Amino acid sequence: MTGLTLGPFPGSDKAYLEHPQRPDIRVPVRVIRQSPTQEHLGSLTRSVPNPDVYVYDASGPYSDAAAQIDLERGLSPVRTWVKPRGRTQMQAARAGEITPEMEYIALREAMRQPEDGGLTHQHPGFGHGFAMPREITPEYVRAEVARGRAVIPANVMHPELEPMIIGRGFRVKINANIGNSVVRASIVDEVEKLIWATRWGADTVMDLSTGPEIHQTREWIVRNSPVPIGTVPIYQALEKVGGVAEDLTWEIYRDTLIEQAEQGVDYFTVHAGVRLPWLPLTANRRTGIVSRGGSILARWCLAHHQENFLYTHFREICEIMREYDVTFSLGDGLRPGSIQDANDQAQFAELQTLGELTRIAWEEGVQTMIEGPGHVPLHLIAENMTRELEACLEAPFYTLGPLTTDIAPGYDHITSAIGAATIGWHGTAMLCYVTPKEHLGLPDREDVREGVVTYKLAAHAADLAKGFPGAQYRDNAISKARFEFRWEDQFNLSLDPERARAFHDQTLPAEAAKTAHFCSMCGPQFCSMKLSQDLAGDLQAYMAEGLAEKAQEFRSQGGEIYAAARDDG
Amino acid sequence: MTGLTLGPFPGSDKAYLEHPQRPDIRVPVRVIRQSPTQEHLGSLTRSVPNPDVYVYDASGPYSDAAAQIDLERGLSPVRTWVKPRGRTQMQAARAGEITPEMEYIALREAMRQPEDGGLTHQHPGFGHGFAMPREITPEYVRAEVARGRAVIPANVMHPELEPMIIGRGFRVKINANIGNSVVRASIVDEVEKLIWATRWGADTVMDLSTGPEIHQTREWIVRNSPVPIGTVPIYQALEKVGGVAEDLTWEIYRDTLIEQAEQGVDYFTVHAGVRLPWLPLTANRRTGIVSRGGSILARWCLAHHQENFLYTHFREICEIMREYDVTFSLGDGLRPGSIQDANDQAQFAELQTLGELTRIAWEEGVQTMIEGPGHVPLHLIAENMTRELEACLEAPFYTLGPLTTDIAPGYDHITSAIGAATIGWHGTAMLCYVTPKEHLGLPDREDVREGVVTYKLAAHAADLAKGFPGAQYRDNAISKARFEFRWEDQFNLSLDPERARAFHDQTLPAEAAKTAHFCSMCGPQFCSMKLSQDLAGDLQAYMAEGLAEKAQEFRSQGGEIYAAARDDG
Repeated sequence: MTGLTLGPFPGSDKAYLEHPQRPDIRVPVRVIRQSPTQEHLGSLTRSVPNPDVYVYDASGPYSDAAAQIDLERGLSPVRTWVKPRGRTQMQAARAGEITPEMEYIALREAMRQPEDGGLTHQHPGFGHGFAMPREITPEYVRAEVARGRAVIPANVMHPELEPMIIGRGFRVKINANIGNSVVRASIVDEVEKLIWATRWGADTVMDLSTGPEIHQTREWIVRNSPVPIGTVPIYQALEKVGGVAEDLTWEIYRDTLIEQAEQGVDYFTVHAGVRLPWLPLTANRRTGIVSRGGSILARWCLAHHQENFLYTHFREICEIMREYDVTFSLGDGLRPGSIQDANDQAQFAELQTLGELTRIAWEEGVQTMIEGPGHVPLHLIAENMTRELEACLEAPFYTLGPLTTDIAPGYDHITSAIGAATIGWHGTAMLCYVTPKEHLGLPDREDVREGVVTYKLAAHAADLAKGFPGAQYRDNAISKARFEFRWEDQFNLSLDPERARAFHDQTLPAEAAKTAHFCSMCGPQFCSMKLSQDLAGDLQAYMAEGLAEKAQEFRSQGGEIYAAARDDG
Repeated sequence: MTGLTLGPFPGSDKAYLEHPQRPDIRVPVRVIRQSPTQEHLGSLTRSVPNPDVYVYDASGPYSDAAAQIDLERGLSPVRTWVKPRGRTQMQAARAGEITPEMEYIALREAMRQPEDGGLTHQHPGFGHGFAMPREITPEYVRAEVARGRAVIPANVMHPELEPMIIGRGFRVKINANIGNSVVRASIVDEVEKLIWATRWGADTVMDLSTGPEIHQTREWIVRNSPVPIGTVPIYQALEKVGGVAEDLTWEIYRDTLIEQAEQGVDYFTVHAGVRLPWLPLTANRRTGIVSRGGSILARWCLAHHQENFLYTHFREICEIMREYDVTFSLGDGLRPGSIQDANDQAQFAELQTLGELTRIAWEEGVQTMIEGPGHVPLHLIAENMTRELEACLEAPFYTLGPLTTDIAPGYDHITSAIGAATIGWHGTAMLCYVTPKEHLGLPDREDVREGVVTYKLAAHAADLAKGFPGAQYRDNAISKARFEFRWEDQFNLSLDPERARAFHDQTLPAEAAKTAHFCSMCGPQFCSMKLSQDLAGDLQAYMAEGLAEKAQEFRSQGGEIYAAARDDG
């Protein structure tokens, strides 16, 4: 890594939405300023202001110019109200309590835009049998958490967290993985990657470190993280037994859970569904078991000829998680690692088990989400979602991609973004990113950015398709800016302003080009948007003269010219 | 550009499939060689060969080490049989004739793999009400062309062409746009871009040049192109009248059509559906008319208060096209340029007109495809396909993306690949690529590569989903190579071997790493594929010992442990 990137995005301010009753609840938001539209009326020019655009902001205090950043001290607490040993969010919700986290989340998800300046919200979509709410209220948040259809990953030991929610009635979220392996390792690198990933929009971050100094790396990450941190505790447990899977024991795993929960990890991937009887179902697969946790546990089960100890000790795990309000991410250890293995028996047998476990976790008051694949061709994606909703009682689904073909290593952020947008539309609540380095190596800084932005656009495509209230506001604003040749606004409203600007400037770097009515793609004479803008006057005249009616007549005539063709062609 | 890239891909040979009866029909194919699998049986190692993999190859003689390339002379004729003034492919097909082009295409599409080495073909998909054929035969090709459900763009004046087909019963194709604008122009650059785009897999190329020397640029492109070339003749017509749309006339346009048809252009985009009565429907759009051709013709119509001359002269256009067997690509001049404008009245009014025109073109024996959007959110994509099939009598659909959100300039190859894969699965026959520079500037060499490879993977994802026979063969082969740590094979089987290799080598450049059972992503101890491979022995033992049965008992017991939970949870 090459150091921290701090301060707001170009053309943007960091601001906070205030809660009307609770001054301790201040929800971060990125406010994008726009330049005015220049309207030409004959020889007169009138300047018409365009409204600020509010954007959901996962970047934490790092994008706040006023914040004091000190990685050694960590972030200041946001959840000043949080106390150890209370009820979990789920238990509180069931008891009818609206927690401060729920209040915070309702403000954050609703993200009401200022005066909308005539931008309309079209295409109310649909959520595949699940109606989107008209408004995100604290009560709505509570009800979804109580029902188990949404989770608020928020360990009581992680007060630095800015609360967020994962559920299909909310904005689709994305996760970025970081973490060193033995091949490359540096603690500060990992913290920088965390800050970098959230800057580009990661809603949660998983620390998948497996190398040395695993405890200390995690401590730095949690203390500096404004987003929920997830881990796979079996990785550290395996380190403790020198990498020999057979030597794992329930006691070592249990102690690892407690150690990590104490540090403030917000959700744990637990591969409790990798059951001994399911392993023979993987024998004829193209790519066997491709989940790291899954293969570790499979090895343990086969070495001992015993059932997975995470399965047999599941209630005890629940008790630890409840104590800290750590959320389950029930791992899909048997997910398909190739198109050929998609939707096979092994995968769906495990999914049924995850459903059983969800029921138990809910009995114990523990929030739960379900991990999903993997590699799945487009026509088999919907079945994954349907089965998950059925087997797992509508607990939030959290998928890795899925990749829709195996043949494009180097481009797997894209093979998987296709699957991710599709499954997000169908109801997946969080999408785990895939970087261009998938299958090939450890992602670097630029890979993380590419992966996060790609997943932001996939999640947003899903939000549009499922009709999330207000999702289209930003699309409308950027399209208006584009049509009016407000280049700076187009850059600033985009997911990656720096890249948009750099690409434009590659051929037209001059400052004057930032207001030019063309770009190098088509040149000044052939810009359709320019031609179309210039048409406006003619079109108004045409319509005003009532020629539209004449055209209607003409249309029927035109129809007749080809009437013969229509009848016998 | 930085010069020509010639010769075969790494690990590949250029080869030709021979037609059993016709020695003049030789279909190019890329043959990827694989290294053997090392099977370990106790202390013995056995080397088991893996079959060659045949890949559809659009790169022409440029990837043939034996070919003599001379851009000034152009390519040697492939269609040695072709004669001016014959029947169009459609007319011949209707008369029951199987043309040499159809024979060629049947061999090319079927692309039978050699001995498949145990690779299975799973998941026969579906084509949304259109059954995929079990086998691609010359007769099948003929029938689809006769019915108008597929086109073979092949101007009789373009003998250098390697015939290919566009239709939803065949592999999904992709188009790459090249062409200079006044801002950047060089003829050799454009020819190099053509060769570069087809090397990465472009099935057709559109020359959208608008700058100076438009005729000569096109001449060089056609003479050196193994793939069909498309153009938008209105661009050159506009150049002829000094860029003043109002000054366009039917006569100038007609002469331009003939000029380009004489040169050998294989398909023309004709915006005959931009009718005067539809223009008022665009008045309240977010982004007006974003098609260049569309906005030029709208301007002409409004300036003259007359119907589009391409519409009124449509039968005369058909006569010219029939003479050369140029294929129509009926332009969607009123396509949406933003999410808000998707699926609006203007778009669908034009689509109805394109249906009318299709009927006429077919009467005249002219092959026809239909252009489609544009910017469309995921949930509105299927409707585009359904309406096109209905209105345009199942003529092949050829879409630009569509982009599924407006907010990611710099990443629009991805926002659009999501839409492209989706609409390809639903039946779109050809996908027009979008590069990362879309909306921002003219693509350079690397943008073309990024755009083409992205669209190849989207088209392949669609082929898998629609169950094209044998499409999964390459996925299975690369996944087998991946699982067996045959890194070189994984690179060579991928869509972009150079990038896959470069990404791997970034962290593990040593030659030894090319056979290592891990990469830098997870490191040697945590590679799930390695763990899973190592499991194979244990798993076999477990299964052989009949423990699977015991596990079955255990499973029912396990079920009972949680029976209470299941009943009341």
